[in-house]
Amino acid sequence: MSCLNHAEVERILLAAPFTRDLGLRLESVAPGECRTSLILEERHLQQDGYVHAGVQATMADHTAGAAGATLVEPGQYVLSAEFKINLLRSAKGTRLACVAKVLKAGASLTIVESEVFCGTGDDLRLVSKTTVTLAVLRARTEA
Amino acid sequence: MSCLNHAEVERILLAAPFTRDLGLRLESVAPGECRTSLILEERHLQQDGYVHAGVQATMADHTAGAAGATLVEPGQYVLSAEFKINLLRSAKGTRLACVAKVLKAGASLTIVESEVFCGTGDDLRLVSKTTVTLAVLRARTEA
Amino acid sequence: MSCLNHAEVERILLAAPFTRDLGLRLESVAPGECRTSLILEERHLQQDGYVHAGVQATMADHTAGAAGATLVEPGQYVLSAEFKINLLRSAKGTRLACVAKVLKAGASLTIVESEVFCGTGDDLRLVSKTTVTLAVLRARTEA
Amino acid sequence: MSCLNHAEVERILLAAPFTRDLGLRLESVAPGECRTSLILEERHLQQDGYVHAGVQATMADHTAGAAGATLVEPGQYVLSAEFKINLLRSAKGTRLACVAKVLKAGASLTIVESEVFCGTGDDLRLVSKTTVTLAVLRARTEA
Repeated sequence: MSCLNHAEVERILLAAPFTRDLGLRLESVAPGECRTSLILEERHLQQDGYVHAGVQATMADHTAGAAGATLVEPGQYVLSAEFKINLLRSAKGTRLACVAKVLKAGASLTIVESEVFCGTGDDLRLVSKTTVTLAVLRARTEA
Repeated sequence: MSCLNHAEVERILLAAPFTRDLGLRLESVAPGECRTSLILEERHLQQDGYVHAGVQATMADHTAGAAGATLVEPGQYVLSAEFKINLLRSAKGTRLACVAKVLKAGASLTIVESEVFCGTGDDLRLVSKTTVTLAVLRARTEA
Repeated sequence: MSCLNHAEVERILLAAPFTRDLGLRLESVAPGECRTSLILEERHLQQDGYVHAGVQATMADHTAGAAGATLVEPGQYVLSAEFKINLLRSAKGTRLACVAKVLKAGASLTIVESEVFCGTGDDLRLVSKTTVTLAVLRARTEA
Repeated sequence: MSCLNHAEVERILLAAPFTRDLGLRLESVAPGECRTSLILEERHLQQDGYVHAGVQATMADHTAGAAGATLVEPGQYVLSAEFKINLLRSAKGTRLACVAKVLKAGASLTIVESEVFCGTGDDLRLVSKTTVTLAVLRARTEA
């Protein structure tokens, strides 16, 4: 039933100007799961030197979409309907890592949870958790 | 009680690398309210040509923070604790406009609602609505 | 296009054991809008004497569903997919009033905002705000 | 640092009229974790015979509060600031079970995740997931 493999998810990631511009990179993809990473630069920060919530939200949302896309049927695609992010602690470091896992794949709605970790080297801490509701759509109709 | 005026909010907006890089511009600020705008470029889009949810989330979150910051006492500042965004329809056009209004200003938590509009010229439609919970903090302690 | 009138919304409200048991009453219904009320009793409170968040959430969710149901086509019905409630201040008083308004009615998803007010007599204050995502369904299939 | 044991959490659960009236029972409590259960009756259902979302929300919120309360310091207490619930599938069965775990305990905000399971006997399925933000307060001041 799954229809998106690593190459296809990477193609979509690179096809999306905003995440390509941000520097988001695909690490791995498996049925119901996707992992991405981001090397932090000064442009990703907010005024206090921490990673901007918008960067984390973008990463969490996009990685969730990729995870959800692995479980739809051919001819279907997913679109974010809503998401909620909890910013758990200040994010400081040299890189972000995101793990998105499908909590429930449905015929019309798929729920995905994304965790974003931040730190330096292998010393990463959970900095935010996001729950994303994806609409599962056929063809190009508006949700 | 209010402590941030237009010049100060603009300074913070420009001091934040991510929103400056994004191109976010301050339109107006008043007690409990802030308006920003963004001229859309190709880099703000996702793979289908619509404005990326991450762009809208960043704008909604940052504008909410500015609105909330107008109502804190001297020596206090705000930090996003969590937000939830509902993507109401596909966002296509040449510009975004965001209006953030404080729903409830509290001693430790302030709730702000941000509406993002998208379109061309004066023909703008509501494309997303976000509710942001801001932690009101004194000095640099972790939430 | 609207298909639920006052009598039909009332019938559903009374048909739902939990809201009937709670004491939820329908005040008015119009296309895209519903109002309900609740006379507070001791059993609606939490341990500090305030109205329990669960009572507010139930009222906000159910009233939102009724508002959304006024805009679906014949043969369709709505089911809550998710909701988020912000508890703005402690709720104390003799009654609750809820106003739910559709923010966006879509073919497969409808977004509704519910405000719950609490107080005594005509002195009511906004105590919580909820955003509800309703799945618009045909027949009895699982979301 | 932890200050609430099983007896104290049970006392609060029984002291809260709404959850006592609902029939919520404490199963276990440990630092950062709480489990509750509910024997389903007809009064807990909505119009289609499924468990009302308000029942699940009440259970998720209250159990989260108990889990968060195990990690505060003496003299502090917690109050729900906001929560978001995703209803994953229709809930049908004879009982509910809820597991709430603290995701992040902070000085002023604590984030808890609650999972609600529904079914008959030992055949329980995850029916909803809730994220709760608790305000950590000292004395009786308003959030």
